[in-house]
Amino acid sequence: MTTYPISTTAIVSDVPKDGQVQWRRQRVQLRAPREDEILVRIIASGICHTDLVLSSIPPGAPGSSPYPKILGHEGAGFVEQVGSAVTHVKEGDKVLLSFDYCGKKECRACTEETPGYCGEFHAKNIFSVPEVYQVEDGGPASGLFFGQSSFSSLALVKGTSALNVSQLVKNEEELRLFAPMGCGYQTGAAAVTELADVTEHDTVAIFGLGGVGMAAIMAAKIRGAKTIIGVDRVQSRLDLAREIGATHVIDTSNLPSLAADLNTAIREIVPLGTNANFDTTGVVPIIDGGLQSLHSKGQMILIGIVNGKSMDLDLGLLLNYGSAIRGCLEGNAKPSKVDAPEASIETWTNFEFQFVPQMIEWYREGKFPIEKLSKTYSAEDFDKALAEMHNGVTIKPILLWSKES
Amino acid sequence: MTTYPISTTAIVSDVPKDGQVQWRRQRVQLRAPREDEILVRIIASGICHTDLVLSSIPPGAPGSSPYPKILGHEGAGFVEQVGSAVTHVKEGDKVLLSFDYCGKKECRACTEETPGYCGEFHAKNIFSVPEVYQVEDGGPASGLFFGQSSFSSLALVKGTSALNVSQLVKNEEELRLFAPMGCGYQTGAAAVTELADVTEHDTVAIFGLGGVGMAAIMAAKIRGAKTIIGVDRVQSRLDLAREIGATHVIDTSNLPSLAADLNTAIREIVPLGTNANFDTTGVVPIIDGGLQSLHSKGQMILIGIVNGKSMDLDLGLLLNYGSAIRGCLEGNAKPSKVDAPEASIETWTNFEFQFVPQMIEWYREGKFPIEKLSKTYSAEDFDKALAEMHNGVTIKPILLWSKES
Repeated sequence: MTTYPISTTAIVSDVPKDGQVQWRRQRVQLRAPREDEILVRIIASGICHTDLVLSSIPPGAPGSSPYPKILGHEGAGFVEQVGSAVTHVKEGDKVLLSFDYCGKKECRACTEETPGYCGEFHAKNIFSVPEVYQVEDGGPASGLFFGQSSFSSLALVKGTSALNVSQLVKNEEELRLFAPMGCGYQTGAAAVTELADVTEHDTVAIFGLGGVGMAAIMAAKIRGAKTIIGVDRVQSRLDLAREIGATHVIDTSNLPSLAADLNTAIREIVPLGTNANFDTTGVVPIIDGGLQSLHSKGQMILIGIVNGKSMDLDLGLLLNYGSAIRGCLEGNAKPSKVDAPEASIETWTNFEFQFVPQMIEWYREGKFPIEKLSKTYSAEDFDKALAEMHNGVTIKPILLWSKES
Repeated sequence: MTTYPISTTAIVSDVPKDGQVQWRRQRVQLRAPREDEILVRIIASGICHTDLVLSSIPPGAPGSSPYPKILGHEGAGFVEQVGSAVTHVKEGDKVLLSFDYCGKKECRACTEETPGYCGEFHAKNIFSVPEVYQVEDGGPASGLFFGQSSFSSLALVKGTSALNVSQLVKNEEELRLFAPMGCGYQTGAAAVTELADVTEHDTVAIFGLGGVGMAAIMAAKIRGAKTIIGVDRVQSRLDLAREIGATHVIDTSNLPSLAADLNTAIREIVPLGTNANFDTTGVVPIIDGGLQSLHSKGQMILIGIVNGKSMDLDLGLLLNYGSAIRGCLEGNAKPSKVDAPEASIETWTNFEFQFVPQMIEWYREGKFPIEKLSKTYSAEDFDKALAEMHNGVTIKPILLWSKES
């Protein structure tokens, strides 16, 4: 029988009502870390659209996991306890938390160093693990969402999800700022540099200017793309996109027919079409317009959540232009270098994870101004953070957790 | 006013009746070569599915070109006359004919050495040029289909479509055998090696085992792909696919539900799915099943004609597996090296065309046994060739043209 010896405070997600998330901050108990797990004192956790999707999905729907559950997958904090098999972090180390993966030799995605497509990705990330938490006034709750469930003052975390950044991060202020690097920023930036390998010869468009889209804009500028088109319907985001690297912007709130008009608007800027478009919106007509606006051999890259959505795909268009539509999880990136936890040493592959250190380097060089994207809120004020995320005031809300909370 | 001083015999395509091609072999007159054109005495021309599509399409339909017209785009022969601006061939040279392209500096596809996506590809290849021929008992007819219209004993050919293979091809017998290299064989083989860059780590499936599909099987074997699955509904083709390199075959005539059952059949062979699938059939449920059967980061590559066809695309499938669906024309290949015709010297880019010489080298090494794919017919017997192409007796029919005809 599971025991829960650790007491802490977390944001518990309960069954949604009328499609609205039901988040409550309350006392919970945690089970002790197992040999491949660690306990992390969270100081900051970014809120990502995926947290909202996974807590607004009805129970029993495809892709759902049991309620109540603790979400959060952009955590940053300090190691408090270390399972016996985890060797790459020690108590007191600074960690950024990312997604989990199996690392087994028989997993081709892991051995090819794109653990975002790990055969166990969904099981280890999207579907929470039951009986990790116990809600104080209720029964057990699921945890280990993305190997971390970091909407919790103390979080139980898989060793594989923890990146030791003690040598890279100077202070707590930076650690808070970098919290979304393990997911959102990496997802946008790495799609541009690791998957599409954008160069100075390329013209690109980025659809949706949240944290992921803005990181993609920054990465396209770093790569020197000659045309970078930011697409959104919120003027303040279009303005910020210009500030951080977009050479052009398109306001979709002015486009009556989304697909056709987006294509036209892009071709007014780049008559021959773009080489790579990145969608973070998950809006099908936008994806359709993006596909139509590609130059030959161009790629329409799907980053935003499109699960359960389908599109009428013109196969002749793909053939005649040699164009492609493809999905991209976690930017095809490797988050950082970690050593093998002993527990999985036999199945471990020697990753050279490096994308988080790369982003930190860009930040230090002034090329990755993520401080312009985020706004911090006390974890108690998560309602305000959600409201300002919805109305466009905040691009990337980061919840701050105090030691006592 | 156009004059037609050259007399020859050609297969003239007239308006289709009841969806059936109307090919007639008859005397025609040709206009003289212009400065960027040459006259070629054709000795062999392969029949490709595209010839049938373009001669069964109703007049005025999208993608159609005016009837009557002379088709044929896998020509081989000897140079008879050379336009003043063409410098890479001379009278008597052996040539293999391929597709045409603009080669202009402002054409990104041409400058990137994938002229198959030339901005003028359709104009220069699919849509014939009016008033190249005059039918003896009628008016003018279109020519320069794929820059060559090689269903003609004497053919007017664009310099850019002619590959000088005098140093590579030993005799007339080889020249006849190699005729389909400029289109069909290149399209299949290069999709495997140039676009997908298949290696010994890959598992691939090839849908449709005509000339294009068989060339893809051979190329996958050359690259050492660990699993090569040939898919067709004709037993003799499945048998030949095994002989030339397929490690497994799937007979789709046994599959009641094409998409779902094809996925299941592939996963019975490769439980984790394939890394790249190549479709030469243009059959939408097969493409759908192919997409479903991919491993993470896998690619469903469209080679077969799918113009006007659409598919209900599950976007979540692409996202969650990082998979892609993409088109591929002419295998993204560079046919051979040619020098710049003077006429276009200002707009020329220095192609290092090399795929045809590569295929010839493979053939000499015994790795590209195309002699198993083709059957020759006198040009007079084109009806028999078409019938045996339809009923599966012949994979790649090659029409032979005698000097007198």
